[in-house]
Amino acid sequence: MGLKGGPTQDEVMAVSLQKLGIRPGDVVADIGCGTGKVSVAAAGLGAFVYAVDRRPEAIAYARATAADAGVAEIEFFEGDAVDFLAGAGTLDCAFVGGSQRLAEVLDLLAGKVRRTIVVNAVLVETLAEAVSCMQRLGIFREAVHVQVSRSAELGGGVMFRPQNPVYIIVGGAAACS
Amino acid sequence: MGLKGGPTQDEVMAVSLQKLGIRPGDVVADIGCGTGKVSVAAAGLGAFVYAVDRRPEAIAYARATAADAGVAEIEFFEGDAVDFLAGAGTLDCAFVGGSQRLAEVLDLLAGKVRRTIVVNAVLVETLAEAVSCMQRLGIFREAVHVQVSRSAELGGGVMFRPQNPVYIIVGGAAACS
Amino acid sequence: MGLKGGPTQDEVMAVSLQKLGIRPGDVVADIGCGTGKVSVAAAGLGAFVYAVDRRPEAIAYARATAADAGVAEIEFFEGDAVDFLAGAGTLDCAFVGGSQRLAEVLDLLAGKVRRTIVVNAVLVETLAEAVSCMQRLGIFREAVHVQVSRSAELGGGVMFRPQNPVYIIVGGAAACS
Amino acid sequence: MGLKGGPTQDEVMAVSLQKLGIRPGDVVADIGCGTGKVSVAAAGLGAFVYAVDRRPEAIAYARATAADAGVAEIEFFEGDAVDFLAGAGTLDCAFVGGSQRLAEVLDLLAGKVRRTIVVNAVLVETLAEAVSCMQRLGIFREAVHVQVSRSAELGGGVMFRPQNPVYIIVGGAAACS
Repeated sequence: MGLKGGPTQDEVMAVSLQKLGIRPGDVVADIGCGTGKVSVAAAGLGAFVYAVDRRPEAIAYARATAADAGVAEIEFFEGDAVDFLAGAGTLDCAFVGGSQRLAEVLDLLAGKVRRTIVVNAVLVETLAEAVSCMQRLGIFREAVHVQVSRSAELGGGVMFRPQNPVYIIVGGAAACS
Repeated sequence: MGLKGGPTQDEVMAVSLQKLGIRPGDVVADIGCGTGKVSVAAAGLGAFVYAVDRRPEAIAYARATAADAGVAEIEFFEGDAVDFLAGAGTLDCAFVGGSQRLAEVLDLLAGKVRRTIVVNAVLVETLAEAVSCMQRLGIFREAVHVQVSRSAELGGGVMFRPQNPVYIIVGGAAACS
Repeated sequence: MGLKGGPTQDEVMAVSLQKLGIRPGDVVADIGCGTGKVSVAAAGLGAFVYAVDRRPEAIAYARATAADAGVAEIEFFEGDAVDFLAGAGTLDCAFVGGSQRLAEVLDLLAGKVRRTIVVNAVLVETLAEAVSCMQRLGIFREAVHVQVSRSAELGGGVMFRPQNPVYIIVGGAAACS
Repeated sequence: MGLKGGPTQDEVMAVSLQKLGIRPGDVVADIGCGTGKVSVAAAGLGAFVYAVDRRPEAIAYARATAADAGVAEIEFFEGDAVDFLAGAGTLDCAFVGGSQRLAEVLDLLAGKVRRTIVVNAVLVETLAEAVSCMQRLGIFREAVHVQVSRSAELGGGVMFRPQNPVYIIVGGAAACS
């Protein structure tokens, strides 16, 4: 696709969704929804999803992804995540695939999310910021570094080609787990 | 737990289940079910699961895991996977967490599984055997190497402690994907 | 050994020394010398080494390591690296295995090291600090993340046990490479 | 460069050379010398090197690499490694960067190498073959999996781009270490 960053790797999405622990009926925010891949997967688990991205091309792409998948339980918000969250009600879970105002986003999410917040990060600086914000807010649970390598044939044998590693940072209300 | 090998890492299980692509109503075999963790997760996705292990202590452990989780849609088979499969009907998916007769198991699964077979391997030899068996059977799709590292606090900072890497080998009927 | 952190992994030391690019006759500082393993290896490449550590037990350990190896070209300094560097002359290379005052150490090294500075880091925070200090000083060249896994026998097969990953951050005078 | 496989990564070469443990005056064989990078590095450590490759373009490339580096202590052999080894005398160390007849090469090396044999492998099958050959010959010491990721700037931050992982398999006479 043409969106910067590309879609979330399937394996990283699987781990992120497992950390989110979405249950049918949950209300979920997908901050920086990009291609809409995570939103569609979350809706497939029975959640109602707010898909948020400030890039018009991302929202257009995500709308098409949802339409292709026949998923209706997604509401799209084109704009800044901070503006979306200022007006949002309580959420069960939130996934942050990307944000230029991560600290503010996490501040707002900490006051609105009942169960789990999951951030995906590629940059070391984003990892460090997500961990320190969550620690300051008292909601940090864990961070994992996931490195997936995929098999490829080479001269009749199998080698593994590494994908870019992703940090998955998990936070949540202290009362939940 | 006391079972050799220990339970599947959460992240590896999440990726394995995503590769399996279980749908509600599926019939799934969990070969070498160990602690029963994967069986319970598969049942939680709406599948009916046959949990197979030749170790009585594994079956006892897995029964307790299922009971704790309040899951009833698991049938336990204490014995060799080859014997179980000789008498089994068609399956939608199969997960192989461990087997001492992997080649025979994959031969039998190739004739009974309609959609997807996922093998988890820690040993290089198991990886090589699973890939070459699946290639010979014409059902090999991909192998991925998943390396998860978990954050740990050290002197006020964050480091990542690596977990043992796991190979996830995926096969399936040529007509499906 | 009893020192906190343990000795540098052989493979990480090999990569660090290759990045340092030590030549016979070089004057090298080993900041946070710990067990003395890197100092002895650097001396083995023909360098004169200042081994610096503020922990008396580290200096004692490193002295014993050097004596065991029959290496005489190491001068030991028990004390803070900032104090050592305040009084030190020009260096060809510097290895920083650990320091509680990393920013100050890098500031001082940037003014004294003619060729290459290599920092080993386990913590994400140390990585981030080393990179941003070196960028500010205009001496940042690269950082690499090295993850070594070692073969182990398991049930007649071979598995790989991952060691803790290490970041190797490399800086140098702009005129050199 | 145009050679299949490309040059050995610097970090992998550093670890391989450390495992080889070359000493000044050693006689070393570089089997499948490719670009000649390892041969030149080994010569730089004071060894006399036989650089062997059956591809004329590799030998031409390696000769140019050696000439550029001003290294004279390399003798080139264009042809099959098995033929080279049939006529070779005792060696101190051998590096195998690639061979289509690995089992035969290791058989011959086991009878001629006094200290250490190091094989680099990208394919799982090569790893498995090298380990099982060395185990059969009674010379297997260890295998390590080295995964290097290099820093890259992305949007003002630092991410790590993974390089292809390499297996380094080490064997040696039982009497040495």
